[in-house]
Amino acid sequence: MSSGSEFVLRPIGRVESPLLDRSSAPNQPDENAPAAWLAFDPNVAEGLRDLHVGDEILVFTWLDRGKRDVLQLHPRGDTTRPLTGVFSTRSPDRPNPIGLHRAAILEMNSPLRIRVDHLEALDGTPIVDVKPVLGAVGER
Amino acid sequence: MSSGSEFVLRPIGRVESPLLDRSSAPNQPDENAPAAWLAFDPNVAEGLRDLHVGDEILVFTWLDRGKRDVLQLHPRGDTTRPLTGVFSTRSPDRPNPIGLHRAAILEMNSPLRIRVDHLEALDGTPIVDVKPVLGAVGER
Repeated sequence: MSSGSEFVLRPIGRVESPLLDRSSAPNQPDENAPAAWLAFDPNVAEGLRDLHVGDEILVFTWLDRGKRDVLQLHPRGDTTRPLTGVFSTRSPDRPNPIGLHRAAILEMNSPLRIRVDHLEALDGTPIVDVKPVLGAVGER
Repeated sequence: MSSGSEFVLRPIGRVESPLLDRSSAPNQPDENAPAAWLAFDPNVAEGLRDLHVGDEILVFTWLDRGKRDVLQLHPRGDTTRPLTGVFSTRSPDRPNPIGLHRAAILEMNSPLRIRVDHLEALDGTPIVDVKPVLGAVGER
């Protein structure tokens, strides 16, 4: 039994990052990830109009190199750590590989190109949403 | 020009909530939303095995009643507030209506049914991912 309907995600842009593949990406939190550019599609320009340098944002990506059939894994690929249910981990291997990244905007060199301070996602990763960080809403 | 490929989200469960439609849902942060059940599909049971009562989790939903062609709006539908780019709001109307909800697990009455303390999503909303809240990873 499954929950029925499927839904189509349409990327709104791509990540431009020095992280080129999973083997070179650090298994580390976003704080240690490199700065990256978010390159948005022209058709979402209006939606970006109120983002500014200094804003803290949540970037949602689609981790398109993740394996979607993984339900249990050893965190960080470390086999000395116990097998763990994937929904208790941040592994990119999961049924719907949505990436969540908190970052600050460093620079905007056009309405469609935004540089953020760190992002743990490989070069070319599709961006699917951006939301503000709001203390009172959804963040507690 | 668009970022090309589309991706298919496959729900892993559904929200069971007393919130039945958008007109009755409070325009309020998650803190003021009611408790809800997360009813998962049997095929993801293994992925849930390490979730426990008391855990703080991030629930990702697909806000399937959102309008996907909205790029600017008046926050909370209040026309006295200025028109705002959608990526600076938490509106459910957005190109990819992914909902992000932080909540604590109150109860688990089977491996597939998890009650959380509050969730701002309508009854029947598809669940697409669950991640742990980790101070150091992605939350800062």
